[in-house]
Formats: sequence, C-alpha cells, structure tokens
Amino acid sequence: MKIDEILQKMEQEDLFSLIILKPENIAYITGFKPSSISALILKEEPLLLCSKLDLDEARDKSQVTVNEFISLGELKKPLLETVQGKLGVEHSMTVGTYHQLCKDFQIKITDIIERFRAVKSSSEIIKIKGAIKIAEDSFKDLDFSVSEDNLAAQLEYNMRSAGSPRPSFETIVASGPRSSFPHASTTSQKLKSPIMIDWGALYQYYASDMTRTLIQGKEEEEILSIVLEAQQKAIDAIKPGVKASYIDKVARNVIEEYGYADNFIHSTGHGVGLEVHEKPSLSFRSDEKLKKGMVLTVEPGIYVEGKFGIRIEDMVLVTNQRKVLTSKSRKILAP
Amino acid sequence: MKIDEILQKMEQEDLFSLIILKPENIAYITGFKPSSISALILKEEPLLLCSKLDLDEARDKSQVTVNEFISLGELKKPLLETVQGKLGVEHSMTVGTYHQLCKDFQIKITDIIERFRAVKSSSEIIKIKGAIKIAEDSFKDLDFSVSEDNLAAQLEYNMRSAGSPRPSFETIVASGPRSSFPHASTTSQKLKSPIMIDWGALYQYYASDMTRTLIQGKEEEEILSIVLEAQQKAIDAIKPGVKASYIDKVARNVIEEYGYADNFIHSTGHGVGLEVHEKPSLSFRSDEKLKKGMVLTVEPGIYVEGKFGIRIEDMVLVTNQRKVLTSKSRKILAP
Repeated sequence: MKIDEILQKMEQEDLFSLIILKPENIAYITGFKPSSISALILKEEPLLLCSKLDLDEARDKSQVTVNEFISLGELKKPLLETVQGKLGVEHSMTVGTYHQLCKDFQIKITDIIERFRAVKSSSEIIKIKGAIKIAEDSFKDLDFSVSEDNLAAQLEYNMRSAGSPRPSFETIVASGPRSSFPHASTTSQKLKSPIMIDWGALYQYYASDMTRTLIQGKEEEEILSIVLEAQQKAIDAIKPGVKASYIDKVARNVIEEYGYADNFIHSTGHGVGLEVHEKPSLSFRSDEKLKKGMVLTVEPGIYVEGKFGIRIEDMVLVTNQRKVLTSKSRKILAP
Repeated sequence: MKIDEILQKMEQEDLFSLIILKPENIAYITGFKPSSISALILKEEPLLLCSKLDLDEARDKSQVTVNEFISLGELKKPLLETVQGKLGVEHSMTVGTYHQLCKDFQIKITDIIERFRAVKSSSEIIKIKGAIKIAEDSFKDLDFSVSEDNLAAQLEYNMRSAGSPRPSFETIVASGPRSSFPHASTTSQKLKSPIMIDWGALYQYYASDMTRTLIQGKEEEEILSIVLEAQQKAIDAIKPGVKASYIDKVARNVIEEYGYADNFIHSTGHGVGLEVHEKPSLSFRSDEKLKKGMVLTVEPGIYVEGKFGIRIEDMVLVTNQRKVLTSKSRKILAP
C-alpha cells in the first residue's frame, strides 16, 4: 500500500528506480532498519540488499525480498538493464557514492521518502506514543542529589531497561547557569536550579523528544510562565493547512512581547518520527504547510547568558482537535 | 602544528581551501565537536562557523576563530574571493550540499582528514585509554539474573555516570542462540549462556570498543579457544608496515583451519578514534598499510546459526612492541 503510493509518485517524477541508503528510510518502507551497509532498490519489485551481518534478521522482518549486498557495482547491474528515465537518489547520499552512480545514470536528487514520512499513519502514531510512554515513565523516582551525568544515567537506565535501545538523542541535563546553553553536554557538576532535562526514547524505531525545566524561585517562575504562554499559543495555532513558519511566529511573538526576542535562539519545533529531527521544521525559514498526521515538537525557550535558561517541549499531533501527545506536568519545582 | 601539516597536504593536492562539515573532523582540528550545523573552512586562517546553539561553547573550546553559521550562501562568499585551484570537500558531504557548491567551484572530493586521523598522537591515545578505562570499569558488580535489555542498561548506567555522554555505539548483549547474530539488538529475554557483550564508552570525544563472550560448557569453550587463537595470532602479526588485509588473513586462516571459514562473517577489525569505526579496515578488501600510532580492534568471531556465536574484541596500538590497550580477561565463565 505504502510502496504503491511511493511508486506512483516516482512515476510522476519520471524516476525508473530510487536507491535508498538511509537506514530510517529503509525502515520506513521495509519494516527492518539495517545496522550495517544496505541498499533498497525501489522499483516494481523492490529489493533490499543487506550486509551478511544483517541478513538473517532482515529476512525475518523485511516486507520486501532480501539479498546480500556485495558492492555498489553489483547493485548497478540490474538497474542498467532497465533504464527508462532518471535514477532517484536521496539528498543524504554522499558525494563519494554519487560519483560512482552518475557515470552510468541520469540522476535526480529527491526527498520523496522524507515527504511521505512527515505524515504519520495510525500505526506510526502508536509507536511514537510507545516512545513517549517509555520516556515519561522513566522520569520517576529520580535521585536529584547527584551530578548532571548521574541524573542522565538514571533516566537512560530506566529507558534502556524498558526496551529503548538508546536514547533518541544525547540526553541533556543542564543545571544552574549551564541551562543557558540549549545543547549543553552533561558534567560532573552537582545539580542546582534550574534543571533543564531534554530526553527521549525509541520504541520500534520511533522516537520521542520532550523537555522539562525544573525551577525554583520567583525569577525562574516568571520566565517559565512566559515560555509556557508562548508554547500554549503555538500549540493552539496548530492545525492542518497552517504554515509551519506561522507556528514559529506565534511562539516568537509572545517571547518578543516580553522583551526576550534575542533570548529565543532556535526554532520553535520540528517533526519527530523515525528520526528525532525530521520534516517539517517550525522555523521562519520553513515553506512547509502542516498536514493532518504530522507529529511535531513545540519547544520555545528563553536563554539568559551566564544566568539560566528555561525550555519546555511537548509533542503534538496535527489534527483538527490539536492533540498533545505528551502528558507530563509542565511546571515542576526543583527539589 | 596539526593544521600546518594539513595545509601542506592541501597545497600538494592543489586545494585552495577545504570545507569540513563532519563533526568528528571538526573536533579533530578545532578541539570542539559541534552539536548542530557547522562548517570549518580550512585555509591559511581557518574559520569555524557554528549555529547559535553552539556559539558560546565553541568560542570557549575551539582553537580557531569562531563565527556564526548563517547559510551555505554566506559561506561561499569569502571563498569566491580567493579561488586559486580546487575546493576540497569530504567524501561524506551530501549531494544536496555538493550541488550548491559545484556551480561556483571546481571541486575535489578528498579524505585528507580521515587519513590524518588514522594515526593517533600521544594525546589522542591518552583519550582513547580514558574511553577504555570507563568501559572496563563499568563491567563490574553486574547483575546477570536479568534480561539482555537490563544488563545493557546496567553497563550504560555505569559508563554514563563516569562521564561518557553516550555509549560509543549501541551496546550489544546477545544471549543464548541470539549470540549467533553479530549485530543483535537486545531483547527482554532472560540471559543464558553464552552472553556476548560488545560495548564501548566515549571520553573527550574518543571511543572505545571491546567484546567479551561469557561462556559455559565444553562446546562453547572449544569455540572460544579457536577464536582466542585467531585473535592472538592476528595481534602478534600487527606491526608498522604490514598490510591491513594481512591481519585479516592471519585471523581467518586460523578459523578456516578448524573448519569454521563460513562462520566468520565479518572483517577482523577496524580503526577506532573520534569515530568507533574509522580507517584502517582490517578486511581482505583493504589496501591500507598499518602505521605506527594507529589504534585497531581485533575481533574475530564464529557464529553458528541457530546455536550460538562467540566473538572476542580487544584494542591494539600499532607499535613495534604491539601494545594491547584493553586489559580485561578474555575468558569469563557465564554465571
């Protein structure tokens, strides 16, 4: 069903075949995510080529025929027999691989699969909810009398034990003044307020991504309330047909009104699915429109250099009902 | 010093500048590994362009000048003023980015930085030893009465608490018949013999990578002894000047002699450094020669489908003394 739609789109774009190397895109189409070099040749009869290391598991899980991946040269052979237009490749293909293909084929670089992936099916949404549940369940019985490193270790232990093979991205625990770095690595420093925690799990290849900042005192509470107002207005504005850049604008306007325009130094959110960052981007640069079934983060933040930063991030399903998928309380006091 | 050598090599290859996007390569040259989009323009006066998210930390850590990354268009401007040959780009550059550059420049795809990175300096070896120490120290007081998922969680908790921001790759705990899949994901299945554990840590951006397979009974012990013989002979053969493919051959020959040729389904090892898999490859396909200062894994394995698999992996520094960097006992009985 999914493959038929993609093949139809390929025909519209005059692609006689599409070579897919990105593991997430292979997982999207076949149900199996390779751990080593693999190539999916998408045509009437799709073929997945996997390294020996993955072969048994791939044959077990994949919804398309699986053979062994020998080399790029071998891969070209069946394609050369059926050239009838352009060969599609992904944006993420490396120039090294590209140069080996462009001698033999007229190539079109495409993001077909990423565009399909942006809109989630109901079974994908169930998996995303599974990843959210693991992450939210892991945020309990935590010992805060420790270092940033150790709090991250506790959260990740809980997620791993619950079946998440890794965090969906490097867990951020940024405490005190370090919370003003949006992407701070953890340190061996003891926790102090505010404590920014940005974490996510994986479930059946699908990711979750959320942030809570635990606060103390009036100043931190005031900034939190601005961030929450920005976030709520952005969430309220989300519905099918709206421009992604508009959601960014809504959140940014609130923060600007309070005089913190220069302290909101990233975009408002992004799609989440097989990758933790995927289409669409909720950014002023985005030219995408929201569609029913997209899953987004909404994560405004205010960062005061040398002082502290506060960000709150939730995941939202684009529907006419504007459904927030994450459920953890957004205002948590630092212990 | 390091930059001077690279600039010299660039001149030999007629590159007036080299654009580096790969975070590990940026870390190698500047001392700072970006978490978001960044570009290092390598020329007489190198310039690192980082996203706002990384700007403060980059300015703090980088050994070269740091400015804000605006867009690829902005990045081209200063380069267009000084075109005097070819613009170097990395093999890993994506075709999307490449197409935006090749309109304006004559481009050469190069792996200069990866070739430099293959030979480690003494300060890099210290960091790799740090990553090994975290991994080896984490393998203690483990509770084996649990699932594969939970044993991985324990190991990763210990590494994370000791400052490793993530495992250097997805920890493998493959137990019983699942040990016959070299890249098995963990499951909620209770541990049984043999227990293959392949794990590694990060320390100051550098990786470690090692494997132990805990065994029980005569059959598993026999296979282990073959693997250990293959590994030891391969380690003994490692010295500067030898072909990487020869080391693979030495290990493979031992396993073949015992009749398990078809059960050793991957290469014998790989370089380790800022990435867990980097140059050189100890594979029959490799045309590289070992050089003093390279750091390698040596990891033969025998996989009997449906039954079990055994792999042992250690890290070795290429010197005339053939120094094994990992120290954990290679024969461990399953509890």
